[in-house]
Amino acid sequence: MCGIVAVSGTSEASKLAFLGLHSLQHRGQEAAGIVAFDAATGSCFRVREAGLVSDVFTAARLAELPGEVALGHIRYSTAGGSGLNNAQPIRVAYREGQLALVHNGNLTNANELRTRLVNEGALFQSTIDTEVIVHLIARSHRHGVEAQIDDALSQLVGAFSVLITVGDTLYAARDPWGYRPLVIGHIPGGGIVIASETCALDIVGARFVRDVEPGEVLRVKGTELTRLRPLPPEGMPQPCIFELVYFARPDTALWGYSVDRARRACGRRLADEQPADADIVIAVPDSANSAALGYSEQSGIAYELGLIRNHYVGRTFIEPSQAGRDFKVRLKYNAVREVLAGKRVVVVDDSLVRGTTSRGLVNLLRDAGAAEVHFRLASPPVRHPCYYGIDMPTKEELIAANMTVEQIRAYLGVDSLGYLSLEGMLDCVSDAGSFCTACFSGDYRAPLVDRDAGFAMSSHC
Amino acid sequence: MCGIVAVSGTSEASKLAFLGLHSLQHRGQEAAGIVAFDAATGSCFRVREAGLVSDVFTAARLAELPGEVALGHIRYSTAGGSGLNNAQPIRVAYREGQLALVHNGNLTNANELRTRLVNEGALFQSTIDTEVIVHLIARSHRHGVEAQIDDALSQLVGAFSVLITVGDTLYAARDPWGYRPLVIGHIPGGGIVIASETCALDIVGARFVRDVEPGEVLRVKGTELTRLRPLPPEGMPQPCIFELVYFARPDTALWGYSVDRARRACGRRLADEQPADADIVIAVPDSANSAALGYSEQSGIAYELGLIRNHYVGRTFIEPSQAGRDFKVRLKYNAVREVLAGKRVVVVDDSLVRGTTSRGLVNLLRDAGAAEVHFRLASPPVRHPCYYGIDMPTKEELIAANMTVEQIRAYLGVDSLGYLSLEGMLDCVSDAGSFCTACFSGDYRAPLVDRDAGFAMSSHC
Amino acid sequence: MCGIVAVSGTSEASKLAFLGLHSLQHRGQEAAGIVAFDAATGSCFRVREAGLVSDVFTAARLAELPGEVALGHIRYSTAGGSGLNNAQPIRVAYREGQLALVHNGNLTNANELRTRLVNEGALFQSTIDTEVIVHLIARSHRHGVEAQIDDALSQLVGAFSVLITVGDTLYAARDPWGYRPLVIGHIPGGGIVIASETCALDIVGARFVRDVEPGEVLRVKGTELTRLRPLPPEGMPQPCIFELVYFARPDTALWGYSVDRARRACGRRLADEQPADADIVIAVPDSANSAALGYSEQSGIAYELGLIRNHYVGRTFIEPSQAGRDFKVRLKYNAVREVLAGKRVVVVDDSLVRGTTSRGLVNLLRDAGAAEVHFRLASPPVRHPCYYGIDMPTKEELIAANMTVEQIRAYLGVDSLGYLSLEGMLDCVSDAGSFCTACFSGDYRAPLVDRDAGFAMSSHC
Amino acid sequence: MCGIVAVSGTSEASKLAFLGLHSLQHRGQEAAGIVAFDAATGSCFRVREAGLVSDVFTAARLAELPGEVALGHIRYSTAGGSGLNNAQPIRVAYREGQLALVHNGNLTNANELRTRLVNEGALFQSTIDTEVIVHLIARSHRHGVEAQIDDALSQLVGAFSVLITVGDTLYAARDPWGYRPLVIGHIPGGGIVIASETCALDIVGARFVRDVEPGEVLRVKGTELTRLRPLPPEGMPQPCIFELVYFARPDTALWGYSVDRARRACGRRLADEQPADADIVIAVPDSANSAALGYSEQSGIAYELGLIRNHYVGRTFIEPSQAGRDFKVRLKYNAVREVLAGKRVVVVDDSLVRGTTSRGLVNLLRDAGAAEVHFRLASPPVRHPCYYGIDMPTKEELIAANMTVEQIRAYLGVDSLGYLSLEGMLDCVSDAGSFCTACFSGDYRAPLVDRDAGFAMSSHC
Repeated sequence: MCGIVAVSGTSEASKLAFLGLHSLQHRGQEAAGIVAFDAATGSCFRVREAGLVSDVFTAARLAELPGEVALGHIRYSTAGGSGLNNAQPIRVAYREGQLALVHNGNLTNANELRTRLVNEGALFQSTIDTEVIVHLIARSHRHGVEAQIDDALSQLVGAFSVLITVGDTLYAARDPWGYRPLVIGHIPGGGIVIASETCALDIVGARFVRDVEPGEVLRVKGTELTRLRPLPPEGMPQPCIFELVYFARPDTALWGYSVDRARRACGRRLADEQPADADIVIAVPDSANSAALGYSEQSGIAYELGLIRNHYVGRTFIEPSQAGRDFKVRLKYNAVREVLAGKRVVVVDDSLVRGTTSRGLVNLLRDAGAAEVHFRLASPPVRHPCYYGIDMPTKEELIAANMTVEQIRAYLGVDSLGYLSLEGMLDCVSDAGSFCTACFSGDYRAPLVDRDAGFAMSSHC
Repeated sequence: MCGIVAVSGTSEASKLAFLGLHSLQHRGQEAAGIVAFDAATGSCFRVREAGLVSDVFTAARLAELPGEVALGHIRYSTAGGSGLNNAQPIRVAYREGQLALVHNGNLTNANELRTRLVNEGALFQSTIDTEVIVHLIARSHRHGVEAQIDDALSQLVGAFSVLITVGDTLYAARDPWGYRPLVIGHIPGGGIVIASETCALDIVGARFVRDVEPGEVLRVKGTELTRLRPLPPEGMPQPCIFELVYFARPDTALWGYSVDRARRACGRRLADEQPADADIVIAVPDSANSAALGYSEQSGIAYELGLIRNHYVGRTFIEPSQAGRDFKVRLKYNAVREVLAGKRVVVVDDSLVRGTTSRGLVNLLRDAGAAEVHFRLASPPVRHPCYYGIDMPTKEELIAANMTVEQIRAYLGVDSLGYLSLEGMLDCVSDAGSFCTACFSGDYRAPLVDRDAGFAMSSHC
Repeated sequence: MCGIVAVSGTSEASKLAFLGLHSLQHRGQEAAGIVAFDAATGSCFRVREAGLVSDVFTAARLAELPGEVALGHIRYSTAGGSGLNNAQPIRVAYREGQLALVHNGNLTNANELRTRLVNEGALFQSTIDTEVIVHLIARSHRHGVEAQIDDALSQLVGAFSVLITVGDTLYAARDPWGYRPLVIGHIPGGGIVIASETCALDIVGARFVRDVEPGEVLRVKGTELTRLRPLPPEGMPQPCIFELVYFARPDTALWGYSVDRARRACGRRLADEQPADADIVIAVPDSANSAALGYSEQSGIAYELGLIRNHYVGRTFIEPSQAGRDFKVRLKYNAVREVLAGKRVVVVDDSLVRGTTSRGLVNLLRDAGAAEVHFRLASPPVRHPCYYGIDMPTKEELIAANMTVEQIRAYLGVDSLGYLSLEGMLDCVSDAGSFCTACFSGDYRAPLVDRDAGFAMSSHC
Repeated sequence: MCGIVAVSGTSEASKLAFLGLHSLQHRGQEAAGIVAFDAATGSCFRVREAGLVSDVFTAARLAELPGEVALGHIRYSTAGGSGLNNAQPIRVAYREGQLALVHNGNLTNANELRTRLVNEGALFQSTIDTEVIVHLIARSHRHGVEAQIDDALSQLVGAFSVLITVGDTLYAARDPWGYRPLVIGHIPGGGIVIASETCALDIVGARFVRDVEPGEVLRVKGTELTRLRPLPPEGMPQPCIFELVYFARPDTALWGYSVDRARRACGRRLADEQPADADIVIAVPDSANSAALGYSEQSGIAYELGLIRNHYVGRTFIEPSQAGRDFKVRLKYNAVREVLAGKRVVVVDDSLVRGTTSRGLVNLLRDAGAAEVHFRLASPPVRHPCYYGIDMPTKEELIAANMTVEQIRAYLGVDSLGYLSLEGMLDCVSDAGSFCTACFSGDYRAPLVDRDAGFAMSSHC
């Protein structure tokens, strides 16, 4: 996952980038970083550190980031290769000047490219696929920054929304499939913001202009936008439907489509496809709130607040030896006995990946006195890993890849279990165009180069 | 405000205290601390630091807190006298041994007592009223720990729920009015937990036993409970109704009463008292969710998710000079245009104190296209400061102390404004007994000793 | 040991106190602290931290210490009760205002006083004897700051050089025996400096005025000095001779007597009393350099640099398992083979306490090829612990309390061993007056109140 | 300057490297780092940080550096390009494995090489010349680690003593001129140590084996040494004489020659060449102690300790506005009035670079009452910058490049000034072979490639 933002054409570039990152915090909580380029001194400064945006950046630190162009990145927590070297933005000095880069997505030929570059003597500072892009630019035999960027991007396969600064010029690009979002906003007082989601435009008071198009490479000089190469042929783009279903913030508009409206529609369809005889509908907060309301609306079953989410969950999970079962779930959620006792409950969640948290939630509901539990998912079974930038476990860990719906129902210990159908989901968002459904359908459109070459593939950004 | 917890009779005392604090995090985010007493070595260790519970405590730090009895405290953010010296637990060595103490509430004679103690040569380490209690114990002329504690507590006026350890014995006490909550739980595997709210019992798997009674002083030795003095006469107790209305977590049972049920009832009553001709009902999340659902239920107007709360708001508020109006509100909330555009909206909030945030929220709703905004408060006008431990501004800053309802409506810029009546609110919780309504009614039962003596009075815990 | 400094009557008080501490760094390396009182705001700020003076204080931190009066302290490394609470200055608010205090020396009735205060309900924040003084002042029944200070000081037995500020008034006092030094300097540009040694006057360009007299209590208001009570009767004072012999810096004048001259004279006398048939004289650097030069001068044996001291020895002593013998000595000293090989060597050291380091040094010299090693001490055998502020081991660990000179010679593995006689040493400094020789002679003049009452006695400051 | 160390063939490699760095601390105090390679896991760990060796490394950190081969580096304080990225060891993963490298010296064609590499697309992480070597190795078209190292080293011009690990194999090399020292030691219990000075062998109990020869490339596998290419022709080597004169520790043997003996001889020769009619000889401690003793010995004038050096000088230089003249000198040195008053004083220093410190010292001596000051330098006038790794100012700042001896005498304010002649100095060390005298004579043997190509040249390591 991860979130990215760039600001150009205003003397408060790093402050606005900070605010943008702040509103994208749901896309990653492990680390945050900003690079700013100050044309007055020709200096390119960077701050990056593990932690939340608001912890990493203080007024004093933002004051160390002067200049009219800035790039920011927030990183999703990753199991293995954490460490600050893997945090973005990447910043290097190369023969054309100071270059900085942030990337959201996952390249499917990163290992192939990296192997070739290492054999040519390139020295890597990190283990992230993003660094490949920087070496490709620095080693391009073509002349001029823009030709070099074009040369590098044209060698990439997979998902990438990237933002690059060279000196005080900003470049924005998306892969031809358009897997990850990237939107352009205009700040009324002057300035351009490009970010993963529209909520990052809202927070700085910017007006939505348009998406960076799939396959587009865009130059931003001050506030002037220039497309650097023609768009790819029609029909290719297929953005990630999981962003709509689960990942983006409900107040974001994605692919020109309201996330809240999409989830609400899925909830309503789910009520039709998977009805239940029950007293109340509750959501697994907060990502399933919209879908649960849709289910309630369509089914006529009352919407209730049966689960409370603890918003202060941190990195410390200290499990006492006398901890009861489902301890980790209890740290994050609490069931409201008053609401649940004696009731037949429909629980709506956005998706089911491993199933362990859901199973714990069901136990909580039972302990709080729920008479029946009917589990409903506002998306189809997740049966295939994502290689385009959504952090997912391997196929072995995906519960729907290994069990039937009835087996899952038994595993969760619920009275009934129902998924939204793939057709149902696609119907709900049909006016937003075509989508990547690989995690549901296994239909991987961008070639899995590394996998086919026998390399390990990561699925994180 | 603030939250407190104590654990006795288990070798994992500090771990369980940590978990209890974790679930009480909504009662204070400024600092957290734990003291543990290890009978094996006679040592009393303390960790306290600014920050969230999960940031302050790591497994390594909890390992530095061995022993079978532990005390914890979380502190609400205070404008002025922050600083680590003011963080709790207080820990001292006095002639009877190692004493540690945590306090939730606000003494109304703290300055009078402090002045007397300073004149006698007592050296204070902090500026918090809690330290007064420790000096009173240490200087008592009576014999034995329990007589000294009784001597000290009997000199206090105002609101106090306190937990004290002397060596490995735990004491719990509440003021005779019972302003702040304090509940007792029993851990099935062995151990006693005493905490501000029942959600701290739930997280460690403890079973609710009973409240510490108003005026009670309780000794806990291992898991054995002994009341040390008779309870005060009937009729005196009047716990804080604001805990029910706003402060406690919805999954907590307070004074034996479900917080969620109380708020739901207030929301329903509010719909009757203050109806509105509207299309949707939305809550100011998260504290008004229950009341808004109640309003929707009773009025039949659809409940919607029109405001999204950003849960990663930190301590850094860096306002860009081009920030639009209502910048701070926008950092915390985002309005969902899709839901609001063209709609007549009822917004339900729990209470209205200064009015500045509400005014910003109204602007957000208007900007997102709301056709009409009908503001509804699930509590009566707050016209009087609290001196018993709820952090409130001075009378000059309380909007309802200085404006009529119509003036407030105009200030907020809403189409209509309606408060729940005091009678209505009390009716909703009548089976839970008598309450302190000072902030609504000005009826201060515990004498305001410091105010009457001309001292400044603080209202924080 | 420890070092103290105070500055009054200049707007750069904390900067000058910092410089004074810097020059007193040889008196303690564990922690450093400064308190400054700013009359303009009535504020009393403190910085104290573990580490060297130049690491603890940065320009930014000194900027946090405005005001015209400042107190500083450096603390000697102590085995047990370290911890920041035990670092000075102590700072408290008491009924007469903001009071800060630093202390060099060791009280011999600290435990008696502490026990009495604790029984009266005083709450101690540290385990150092210095805190007793503060409580005595705060609890004095006399009226006014100066009467309270007098009341407190008159209850103390043992060694104390103290500096106290109450608001912007400075007080300086020494015990009637005058164990620890305290000198007054005048800054030509305006300002008074009072410090442990004259080298702290030199560094700030202050001119030596006089000692604070034994038994004197002095008020410093701005740059005006007033003696607050008559001096004690003649004949009582007997400052510590160990300061001259070992502890003070050679460029300091102590009790109006040059430390370098005293040590040089002891070295010469040692050559007469304990001659050796040898080729070269070397010092154990740096404290014995003066004495070794004196020995060389008087004996006519050439002075050489046979031992090099590593000045970067830090707190990390990581002993590899293959470390040879005398590893710790080798970390601190290196022998110069070129100088020593084949030579008969006189090694001069200032004193012999435990003997372990000296034994290691002898091995180093042998390994570097020394043909003969003649060990000479420029002071008599140390047979008795100091209870007046020099950090020494218990009697069990003092080698001269447990072995004859011949046994010590054999233990060190040297060809000959010779101590300066007590008479010889006293002759060398006879024009400087009477001295405390308790560590050599066992003649303790200030009563050992705690020892006689069965309390444990500390020997550190 | 800088110091380097490597350890191979023992399970305590990083501990011994730490001790070696500790004894080389005089060669640099800005930063310290160690890399260790653990063959068992194939992991290469690094710790590097600003600060003294003993502050950077704790037992816990050394435990993070397991393995049988380790490299260490300490860095001299540099004005400009500090920052952790410039700290060594450099560590990279390249196609042949994990490579780490440390370097002492200064390349005279670093900018030429760097420009070429950048144009080829190499991405640099630091601004130090050392990184060039790593890129040259990684990009070599030759096959195998050793051919690639040979390829890279053969492109370097200037001064380099380098230590490289690739996996668990260690390589050591010196430039053909042999500017910077590098010595090999054997640890009796097993293991090889290679370090800048012999004092790093002594501290780990290693026996001196021989120098790494000028132009040699050596492989160390476990404890087995193999020379990888033939030595360059005779006559070329000319190690730096300034290491002998000033930089190395007196207990080190350099180029097989005792530093102490060299300096002593220079001091004696200086007494012959530049006699003085005086009462005492004093050294500027500590680097001139040996030369001053030599002067005293030869002239018969008594050696005295007239200047005391403060060994705790840190990084904080906070100059009070009332600071007298020569404040910074006074922070570092104090004059002993007792020794100096009324005396005619010969002051011996090792060298005179800018002259500002010496001028301050002379003022100190005058203020302490010296009747006459005769300044003597145990080396010739420094008239040319060093480009081979000794940190020196530009020619504009070298006092002897811009003034006659008489002008310098007047500037320092001394009664007489005398330098050792170049012939005299070379005579004193003639049995140690040929030396680089560029800083005295301007005779630069290794080509100044960057200077001749118009690049800026740095003079630091």
